[in-house]
Amino acid sequence: MVRVGILGATGAVGEALIRILLGHPEARLTFLASDHAAGTRVDQALPVLRGQTDATLRAPDLAGFVAEADVVFLAKKGADSMEWAPKLVATGLKAIDCGAEFRFRDPALYERFYGAKHTCPELLAEAVYGLPELYRDSIRKARIVGVPGCYPTTAILPLAPLLAEDLVAPAGIAVDAYSGLSGAGKTYNEKTRNLFVDCDENCRAYNPLTHRHAPEIEQELSLAAGKPATALFVPHLLPLDRGILTTIFADLARPATTADVLALWRQRYANEPFIRVFDKLDEVTLANVHRTNYADFSALVDARSSKLVIVSALDNVIRGACGMAVHSMNLMCGLPETTGLLFRCV
Amino acid sequence: MVRVGILGATGAVGEALIRILLGHPEARLTFLASDHAAGTRVDQALPVLRGQTDATLRAPDLAGFVAEADVVFLAKKGADSMEWAPKLVATGLKAIDCGAEFRFRDPALYERFYGAKHTCPELLAEAVYGLPELYRDSIRKARIVGVPGCYPTTAILPLAPLLAEDLVAPAGIAVDAYSGLSGAGKTYNEKTRNLFVDCDENCRAYNPLTHRHAPEIEQELSLAAGKPATALFVPHLLPLDRGILTTIFADLARPATTADVLALWRQRYANEPFIRVFDKLDEVTLANVHRTNYADFSALVDARSSKLVIVSALDNVIRGACGMAVHSMNLMCGLPETTGLLFRCV
Amino acid sequence: MVRVGILGATGAVGEALIRILLGHPEARLTFLASDHAAGTRVDQALPVLRGQTDATLRAPDLAGFVAEADVVFLAKKGADSMEWAPKLVATGLKAIDCGAEFRFRDPALYERFYGAKHTCPELLAEAVYGLPELYRDSIRKARIVGVPGCYPTTAILPLAPLLAEDLVAPAGIAVDAYSGLSGAGKTYNEKTRNLFVDCDENCRAYNPLTHRHAPEIEQELSLAAGKPATALFVPHLLPLDRGILTTIFADLARPATTADVLALWRQRYANEPFIRVFDKLDEVTLANVHRTNYADFSALVDARSSKLVIVSALDNVIRGACGMAVHSMNLMCGLPETTGLLFRCV
Amino acid sequence: MVRVGILGATGAVGEALIRILLGHPEARLTFLASDHAAGTRVDQALPVLRGQTDATLRAPDLAGFVAEADVVFLAKKGADSMEWAPKLVATGLKAIDCGAEFRFRDPALYERFYGAKHTCPELLAEAVYGLPELYRDSIRKARIVGVPGCYPTTAILPLAPLLAEDLVAPAGIAVDAYSGLSGAGKTYNEKTRNLFVDCDENCRAYNPLTHRHAPEIEQELSLAAGKPATALFVPHLLPLDRGILTTIFADLARPATTADVLALWRQRYANEPFIRVFDKLDEVTLANVHRTNYADFSALVDARSSKLVIVSALDNVIRGACGMAVHSMNLMCGLPETTGLLFRCV
Repeated sequence: MVRVGILGATGAVGEALIRILLGHPEARLTFLASDHAAGTRVDQALPVLRGQTDATLRAPDLAGFVAEADVVFLAKKGADSMEWAPKLVATGLKAIDCGAEFRFRDPALYERFYGAKHTCPELLAEAVYGLPELYRDSIRKARIVGVPGCYPTTAILPLAPLLAEDLVAPAGIAVDAYSGLSGAGKTYNEKTRNLFVDCDENCRAYNPLTHRHAPEIEQELSLAAGKPATALFVPHLLPLDRGILTTIFADLARPATTADVLALWRQRYANEPFIRVFDKLDEVTLANVHRTNYADFSALVDARSSKLVIVSALDNVIRGACGMAVHSMNLMCGLPETTGLLFRCV
Repeated sequence: MVRVGILGATGAVGEALIRILLGHPEARLTFLASDHAAGTRVDQALPVLRGQTDATLRAPDLAGFVAEADVVFLAKKGADSMEWAPKLVATGLKAIDCGAEFRFRDPALYERFYGAKHTCPELLAEAVYGLPELYRDSIRKARIVGVPGCYPTTAILPLAPLLAEDLVAPAGIAVDAYSGLSGAGKTYNEKTRNLFVDCDENCRAYNPLTHRHAPEIEQELSLAAGKPATALFVPHLLPLDRGILTTIFADLARPATTADVLALWRQRYANEPFIRVFDKLDEVTLANVHRTNYADFSALVDARSSKLVIVSALDNVIRGACGMAVHSMNLMCGLPETTGLLFRCV
Repeated sequence: MVRVGILGATGAVGEALIRILLGHPEARLTFLASDHAAGTRVDQALPVLRGQTDATLRAPDLAGFVAEADVVFLAKKGADSMEWAPKLVATGLKAIDCGAEFRFRDPALYERFYGAKHTCPELLAEAVYGLPELYRDSIRKARIVGVPGCYPTTAILPLAPLLAEDLVAPAGIAVDAYSGLSGAGKTYNEKTRNLFVDCDENCRAYNPLTHRHAPEIEQELSLAAGKPATALFVPHLLPLDRGILTTIFADLARPATTADVLALWRQRYANEPFIRVFDKLDEVTLANVHRTNYADFSALVDARSSKLVIVSALDNVIRGACGMAVHSMNLMCGLPETTGLLFRCV
Repeated sequence: MVRVGILGATGAVGEALIRILLGHPEARLTFLASDHAAGTRVDQALPVLRGQTDATLRAPDLAGFVAEADVVFLAKKGADSMEWAPKLVATGLKAIDCGAEFRFRDPALYERFYGAKHTCPELLAEAVYGLPELYRDSIRKARIVGVPGCYPTTAILPLAPLLAEDLVAPAGIAVDAYSGLSGAGKTYNEKTRNLFVDCDENCRAYNPLTHRHAPEIEQELSLAAGKPATALFVPHLLPLDRGILTTIFADLARPATTADVLALWRQRYANEPFIRVFDKLDEVTLANVHRTNYADFSALVDARSSKLVIVSALDNVIRGACGMAVHSMNLMCGLPETTGLLFRCV
């Protein structure tokens, strides 16, 4: 039984982690920390949990984590992770950061896009990018994992094997992505304008080419390609709660058919429990991945233009964040990796 | 391990049963029958299930059910259940009907509201109304259960104990109900007009006072009251997928406070795993019950008018149909009754 | 040509007034005042208006209003209206208040429900409740009009004639109302929780029996009945932008049929341009009133219980606020009363 | 006063034309034809029109059109237009076809993508593609106009001037488009699966690269470029009613900045009443064009990859179909071209 602490238990990420971990047969939530709500019962702060837990929120406390947890999820927004992660790791705890603080190989990238000094670059250097399909072995041995961003996951999973095999050209890949509003969290966000009346019956791009997930996508695509890759990342808001659907346009680097692409994926991901490759683009839907840990995608080659179209879908809260985080936890703690993650949407 | 057959496996009810039962640790889906799609893999007919089952749909077949199943869910729309239920029960199988064919004490009511002759009134006579909170012991011994309608469940659960204790007057109870579109099934329904463009950004009543669930509500409220109860049932459509929110206005039969009502419920339902009583009406939300087996409700007394207001919520597909059906299966098969039903919405 | 000023031009009410009045052939927007955005072009503050006006927002200024306007709409939230209305009226301008400050006959009711001292009770005493169907002649002569609340309008229009004719009992009328989110304005509202993720796929009651519109409903129903009327008002949020659908349950005061009720309405409202009486409850839909100035309703009598069910619908922004306000303006300024209000939703 | 007939008055296109034309000061609806509903009042077939017209639907009838109409809109789905258009034109009436029958220069393209023989290729040869910004003068003189498709309009308007000026390379333009469900009409469509439960909280591509609008897009882009242009057109469904948002990725044909692109558009479209060029991609939203006749777009150059990103938005029912059709009518009939089309969304 893995003993789990969560820092930032009542935010959007914390809540999703609790929901998942309450059903995880090998994990026990032992320390739910919240700055604001310490002393409150969890099911009062999050009424959706009524009847499922009688735990009480506590103030964050290093000694408490050390005494009661094996793993701590850093689920607070912002730079707080850089303060906590080194302390946790130093005491022998495993840390899983759900923010952006431990995703970048190059601290300068973090600093440029997130506007804050990286205060523990040495820990960043050892952190593993928590995408199990690409870094499974490293995650198993990691002390600290940086959980990937939701948008990057939709792009990296289908593109990485194609770039690794030189099937797709690494320059100028169009990543046209559409996300539900759960990605904007549970508080008002003036930039995203996540009020109902601003999103309902609406669709719009935001931060085109400059979104913080752009450098993360390029980092991983470049590593996969073995040479610099560039992406034109244009995120949009969809009037729905859960899910990201990403349509990708890339140049083929050598002649290939749709069948070639599908075959490559099916070979590369043959034993992956959370990847589903579909025959046709229109079989990839948000409904199919809703509240699951699957990443679904398919491909279609346009022979006329030697371009490849990919449609990729996942649930941003589960597969794009907290399910993937728990997947890393399973790997880090020596559990069967699908434990607690085979939920299907009832 | 309970061996389960489903008749009508690819309809809305069949699909929901499969989703639930694939995660049920003591049930095995052994016979998935479909008239239209026999011979097809389930995950081709229902792509959302890709990666979760490799079962194949088969033609309905009594001998097959007898050989391979202990329980059969009747999940097809319409009068088909009256043909199959007697045969299944005669062979010793347990039958759980998810339609309206085995809900009524009086076959004449069925015939009037559903426009078809009831062809097995003797089996109807022994059928148990599958609401565990009211008929737990009878369900345990039943050969056949008629799963309650979704709307009636929202009204009966809060009202029955109040009527039994003469706290509420049984005449002229206003049951103002609002349902998501999943209640209208997965095919086009000319009466409900369940196209996206007819429902999106819209709300409207349908079949006011004459909906087929009205006599079912009155049957159970009358049984609870021990005298005839009448309800004004007005269902409406909400522009969302899952959930029913019902607001009820009733006359108090004797002076009582909000606290009295809450206390009565909390005593009556003290050990019920799937009932949650909230202190305030506005704490009852569709979000809280989304994709769970909970029925949530609360009360507020208006002393000026000696009236009681109730707000009641549930997920119509789970608690209002298939979760409740599996609850009955657990009871009928001697399993711990919450087995496979404690899913929380991740 | 009526010269129009708006105080609070960029809020939800101000924006809707501008949209309506830009298409009004006999009105000219001469003074658009905004505290926050003075100096900005209107179409920069409200990009939806690009190409439709080159007006610039200005700081509120009494002398400016006097010099350039005949009518001023008070469209700011809160008690500001009580400061401006007396000054405007004193200079001979007509004032139309879109808030709650001039709706109540009894200042004590305002003070109790809105938590602020009423600072100009003498002006309140002469203010006319801006519901043209009930107070047309008074509005024509008014110096100041208090535009009714959106919810009250859905209840008062169908109920007032029935109470006036003693057809409906005035006690304990259940007013079960469901509103889209535009009613909550364009800024984050912690009480209503109007974020997309809190409202999408959700439905819930709020402020049951204690909403500020409850005393307003009771004031007008009592005036219509000629004796005290009480309502149980339970507002809910619908996951959509525009529209309120209200279902009402009332006791008949004397025997009557559905046809009697419809006939009474059709006689009483025979010449009303913005009232549509439908034969059946299910013909009253939010889609039918979307972005129009119509109030639609229908009735159904339940003879068993001697109760009447009403379904009533309107667009809360147009018929429930700004369209109704412009209707008052037309009356106050001697224009044909439907001028600029016959928009149909294209 | 232009006398207008509509063939197919109760379909999605017919209804939208009626709504628009009821507010058109220089048009009178004289002949509303419907095969199914002849003899019924329009406001019974389309209850949303209650109170706005007392017209009655009639059977289609050539003599009737000749006697009573100057212009006839062909608003039925399918090949019917090819039967009626020649007859109407032969009698001197002007015909405006809202389907695909008169959009293609090459009848073979029509036949390949629409699966039907083109039965009046000679009339097709003289038909004008009804995009006023590109073919204003020809439309003025046309006897028959083929109204453009909704998706093509979003792509052609921003791309045509850039291709004409050799600013953008004509090969392999990615046109990633997202449409609301009103584009799928008012009846059940098995291919689009336009039920509420299939679209709500969902997003998916359909007919990728093979949608019928693909050859239409390429026809017009090629004409603008003066050489063959190819587009990768991937349409998707959005869970909303009205609007198409299209994001386009194209290679720059020569070095250019975002400012260059904006300047080129602003010069080319300087006098266009229904084009709005925005400075930034994220200012282009479906909310801004909702129920208007505007086409909005903006651009962003990625200097690293020498690619251009465009976001383009319009209301598919108004600007993408019926508003554009009425614009053509105004031009053909010598009316000021914005007559009846300056509606703003109230």
